[in-house]
Amino acid sequence: MAFDAGELTALLDGRWAHVRNQVREALDGVDLAPADDLDTESHRARTLEQLQQLAKTGVPGLGFPSAYGGSGDTGGSVVSLEMLPGNLSLMVKSGVQWGLFGGAVVALGTERHHERYLSDIMSAELPGCFAMTETGHGSDVQNLRTTATYDPESQEFVVHTPHEAARKEYIGNAARDGRMAVVFAQLITGGEGHGVHALLVPIRDQAGNPLPGVEITDCGRKAGLNGVDNGRIVFDQVRVPREALLNRYGDVAEDGTYSSPIASKGKRFFTMLGTLIRGRVSVAGTAGSAAKLALEIALRYGDVRRQFGRPGSADEVVVLDYLAHQRKLLPALAKTFALHFAQEELVASLHDGPTDERAQRELEARAAGLKAITTWHATRTIQTCREACGGAGYLAENQLAQLKADTDVFTTFEGDNTVLLQLVAKGLLTDYKDQFSDLGTLGLAKFLADQFVSAMFERSATRSLVQRIMDGSGKDDILDRGWQLEMFDERERHVLDGLGRRLRKANRDNGFEVFNRAQDHVLRAGRVHVERQLLEAFVGAIERCRDEETAALLNKVCDLFVLSTIEEDRAWFLEHERITPRRSKAITEAVNELCRQIRPHAVDLVEAFGIPRQWLTAPIATGAEADRQEELRAYERS
Amino acid sequence: MAFDAGELTALLDGRWAHVRNQVREALDGVDLAPADDLDTESHRARTLEQLQQLAKTGVPGLGFPSAYGGSGDTGGSVVSLEMLPGNLSLMVKSGVQWGLFGGAVVALGTERHHERYLSDIMSAELPGCFAMTETGHGSDVQNLRTTATYDPESQEFVVHTPHEAARKEYIGNAARDGRMAVVFAQLITGGEGHGVHALLVPIRDQAGNPLPGVEITDCGRKAGLNGVDNGRIVFDQVRVPREALLNRYGDVAEDGTYSSPIASKGKRFFTMLGTLIRGRVSVAGTAGSAAKLALEIALRYGDVRRQFGRPGSADEVVVLDYLAHQRKLLPALAKTFALHFAQEELVASLHDGPTDERAQRELEARAAGLKAITTWHATRTIQTCREACGGAGYLAENQLAQLKADTDVFTTFEGDNTVLLQLVAKGLLTDYKDQFSDLGTLGLAKFLADQFVSAMFERSATRSLVQRIMDGSGKDDILDRGWQLEMFDERERHVLDGLGRRLRKANRDNGFEVFNRAQDHVLRAGRVHVERQLLEAFVGAIERCRDEETAALLNKVCDLFVLSTIEEDRAWFLEHERITPRRSKAITEAVNELCRQIRPHAVDLVEAFGIPRQWLTAPIATGAEADRQEELRAYERS
Repeated sequence: MAFDAGELTALLDGRWAHVRNQVREALDGVDLAPADDLDTESHRARTLEQLQQLAKTGVPGLGFPSAYGGSGDTGGSVVSLEMLPGNLSLMVKSGVQWGLFGGAVVALGTERHHERYLSDIMSAELPGCFAMTETGHGSDVQNLRTTATYDPESQEFVVHTPHEAARKEYIGNAARDGRMAVVFAQLITGGEGHGVHALLVPIRDQAGNPLPGVEITDCGRKAGLNGVDNGRIVFDQVRVPREALLNRYGDVAEDGTYSSPIASKGKRFFTMLGTLIRGRVSVAGTAGSAAKLALEIALRYGDVRRQFGRPGSADEVVVLDYLAHQRKLLPALAKTFALHFAQEELVASLHDGPTDERAQRELEARAAGLKAITTWHATRTIQTCREACGGAGYLAENQLAQLKADTDVFTTFEGDNTVLLQLVAKGLLTDYKDQFSDLGTLGLAKFLADQFVSAMFERSATRSLVQRIMDGSGKDDILDRGWQLEMFDERERHVLDGLGRRLRKANRDNGFEVFNRAQDHVLRAGRVHVERQLLEAFVGAIERCRDEETAALLNKVCDLFVLSTIEEDRAWFLEHERITPRRSKAITEAVNELCRQIRPHAVDLVEAFGIPRQWLTAPIATGAEADRQEELRAYERS
Repeated sequence: MAFDAGELTALLDGRWAHVRNQVREALDGVDLAPADDLDTESHRARTLEQLQQLAKTGVPGLGFPSAYGGSGDTGGSVVSLEMLPGNLSLMVKSGVQWGLFGGAVVALGTERHHERYLSDIMSAELPGCFAMTETGHGSDVQNLRTTATYDPESQEFVVHTPHEAARKEYIGNAARDGRMAVVFAQLITGGEGHGVHALLVPIRDQAGNPLPGVEITDCGRKAGLNGVDNGRIVFDQVRVPREALLNRYGDVAEDGTYSSPIASKGKRFFTMLGTLIRGRVSVAGTAGSAAKLALEIALRYGDVRRQFGRPGSADEVVVLDYLAHQRKLLPALAKTFALHFAQEELVASLHDGPTDERAQRELEARAAGLKAITTWHATRTIQTCREACGGAGYLAENQLAQLKADTDVFTTFEGDNTVLLQLVAKGLLTDYKDQFSDLGTLGLAKFLADQFVSAMFERSATRSLVQRIMDGSGKDDILDRGWQLEMFDERERHVLDGLGRRLRKANRDNGFEVFNRAQDHVLRAGRVHVERQLLEAFVGAIERCRDEETAALLNKVCDLFVLSTIEEDRAWFLEHERITPRRSKAITEAVNELCRQIRPHAVDLVEAFGIPRQWLTAPIATGAEADRQEELRAYERS
């Protein structure tokens, strides 16, 4: 099979090919290499310098309004972060400065904030923080305890941390560089609470010293991402002017009167969070990108490394020719393709903006689900790649160590994956109407039982194509795409139906227990839903492929994704009699066979992702290992 | 259930309770704290100092012959390494110095080597290396390329690295501290090769400079274990006296005549490796210990950390009360118990020494299998614990980051796990007779087909008890131990039978292909075999428990181990119609129920392992988090 690598890269580069190429060129010649043997302070200093370098390339401006010198290209800004997998401290510091801090000012602020700050934010002259998480409340943002109480006398807000568990925790840019923070706090005026709002609070003076009333401590060394200075912030009655409130969705008049364009408190909260969805989409993209880089390293090494003799041959066996080695890497590669195509769709939805409230919720759920599944995939895949490279994979020079350490936290930041998958499941089980809040995040059981709706299948871009393929399929063949789609579809329906029935048993008294006992079922619902989305995105991408041989190869990769996914979950399909024991074994054999067929193309496939070459520095992934093996074989023959 | 914590600790401490207590006391007051923000050179220097401190405690002497001031307690020496999970750089450096380097001199050398070196090795005045692995040959030791050619003229061996891929790779103690190395090389005398042998080769002078002909390079920074100085060694015609040969199993006379007490070359090789089995046993023990420490941190935190409100209650929910959280940690805890008891049996077998060749092979297979399963379990469990602690788990101060980074390489060093599990399976499929070699390590297929024997179930210490329980069981109940044992037993028999049938198809031409296509089947055979051993060890331990309530709790933990193991592999049981779909779902529900029942005892259970208290430094695992939560709840109520 002689597929067209250019065609494949074009397909993978997709709608933001121009941004990918722009970044590939912009980074060329800028020294953004990561650090692996610096102490924490030096690593942070270096990362700040690199951030300033990156600001000069103009790339960070992609996501800012064109009125302030940006490109107004939300999708492009997310895609640009994906291009930094080789230095994830820099990627995260960029995400904090321009995505979270800058993004919050853009999305939650109004012209007065934009005029005053955006230019300095884009140039990184005003390093900032996104101070949402609290020690006591990581995932439960609605119940943050920091207060911002309006004082009509002085027309100021008093920002205050009431107790230790309410301190802002793990805030990027806080320990060393941040001058200002977007602080999320319970807004109180006239003795009445209006829920969580965001304010701009200066935290350091020009000399870098914490301002009066602001106490900052350092989170210290972390497992990875040590170029990012995470810290804790405690506010002791810190006063900021009334105009510091980011007032797009809620404002306080001079006399203390509260007003908002959104009536429901719960809906207002979710709208504010919804505008910050970009962070999750960026994390998903970067995690996928890190998995690609890790796979490229492991596959290139596996393609030249030899170990153990083969009877009847003088040469030892190339390790990627072993089935066990293929089994480790190739299903992970196939899933990486599926995630890539789903990410492309997600970025497009984010960029185009949801057209109605339902679409907004779908987008949130899709971002939550893809973030969870991609970051888990990245952690697992990078670990597997590390192991597949043996001791060499453990050496810092071969990059996998840092990739692993840096991406590990992705599974729990920007929303803990376990919590996110539950959000996905809840989104599927209810249409929420306008009752966003007042239910408690986990006390939803009774509510869900009442509201359970069957309209759980959103209209994805490829849904009609998918329906056509399923309708056209009469075949009961594991390699038939219609059969595969039906399996994913039916599994999701069945899991959701069963979950609905379980949750319907809840009443006022047993709500928590019923929900808690079904928690594994809830997580499964979230997961199988995302897996269906992945498959549909893959099918949609193959449809867009214009080269026949390339499409044929992609079809095989898609088969491997589907069948290895079913294989992993075959217990469910057997339990629910969707497949017979005989078919289950046939699926395992088909996965082996697909691994054998895809193996010769493995390196070409992973190269097609077009990770910027400057990030591929591992000696085992470059010529050195191949040369060594050649020398050894020459010696053996002599 | 009020179980007896003292009884449980006594049971867990087992036969080497005195050693565990000795180490707990010896370490007290010695500063062996790990480092988390040192550059590589400082970390190495500190670890060397700590190694010297440890030497003074007398603990390292446990494994050395009493004639030279040691205790001659092989089991005790392995158990003592298990007590260092809080500083794994120190543990590994100790393992290299006293286990591998010292152990090789003891086991492969003779009196002349013992007299001259053992005292300095024990005191760490002679830091040494174990130079086996080569760049081109990590797992395939039999085909090492370094040569040691005897020159009868000068009565010296010439140690030489013929090409780059033959350099010694990843050698601990080599980059900075080692003065001498046990070098594994192909022994050649009179133009004839005699296979791999070990020699003592000085590599640095007293000032720490490499000796002439010895080129040492630094492997540099690693993902973890940066207190250990790994390096690469190249020998350029380095001459050592004839007496440098560790000559217990093979010697060269002055005139160059080779002699050995073991006739078969292959058997000789495996005997030499067999004596080094202690390394694998130590790694398994330490990995288990690291998993215990990680679980203690995560369970203590999960037991006080609260998140999300609960309808009808002012308090938020303790996270360990969530089913999803229990699911993450408690099956892992249960498996940790099983591994602990199996490790205890393994250490006893190692200590008592195999009585015949068959027992020797069983011991090797048992060590290989337990090392693979325990190290994978540790990597996975520590990762899960990290995630279960959210962002806090990512902070260096909470220990999980370093535990994870340090243990990661355990899956691929001292034998790559994938290779080790294949060794286990091969051991089950053949009795090898005396034909250890000449077959190629992976070209065994034809051989296996001929030699396939049914005597695959070794006689374990608890086998008669197990048989009695199975015989006495008429019940078809998933909580019945007899049924559980039968499930594990039958699965193993079935997997092995099927594998035997597949491999029998091999002939001279297709041997590699047949074997390679069955590789996933081979790995499965290794895994299910080890899982049966784990269950039997657990059953044996419960039998030894004298307190009824403690035994009752342990029975529940054992049930959780069994049922979560079956649940994970339930696809196989369904495919082979060993369980019905209905029973499969019942097993999942039983795992949930067992999690609920064990949850109140989780912290007590993990404490019973008696990890030395000095290693538990994580703020989230000590009083700080509990205090913070109390303050928050007081505030909420006010």
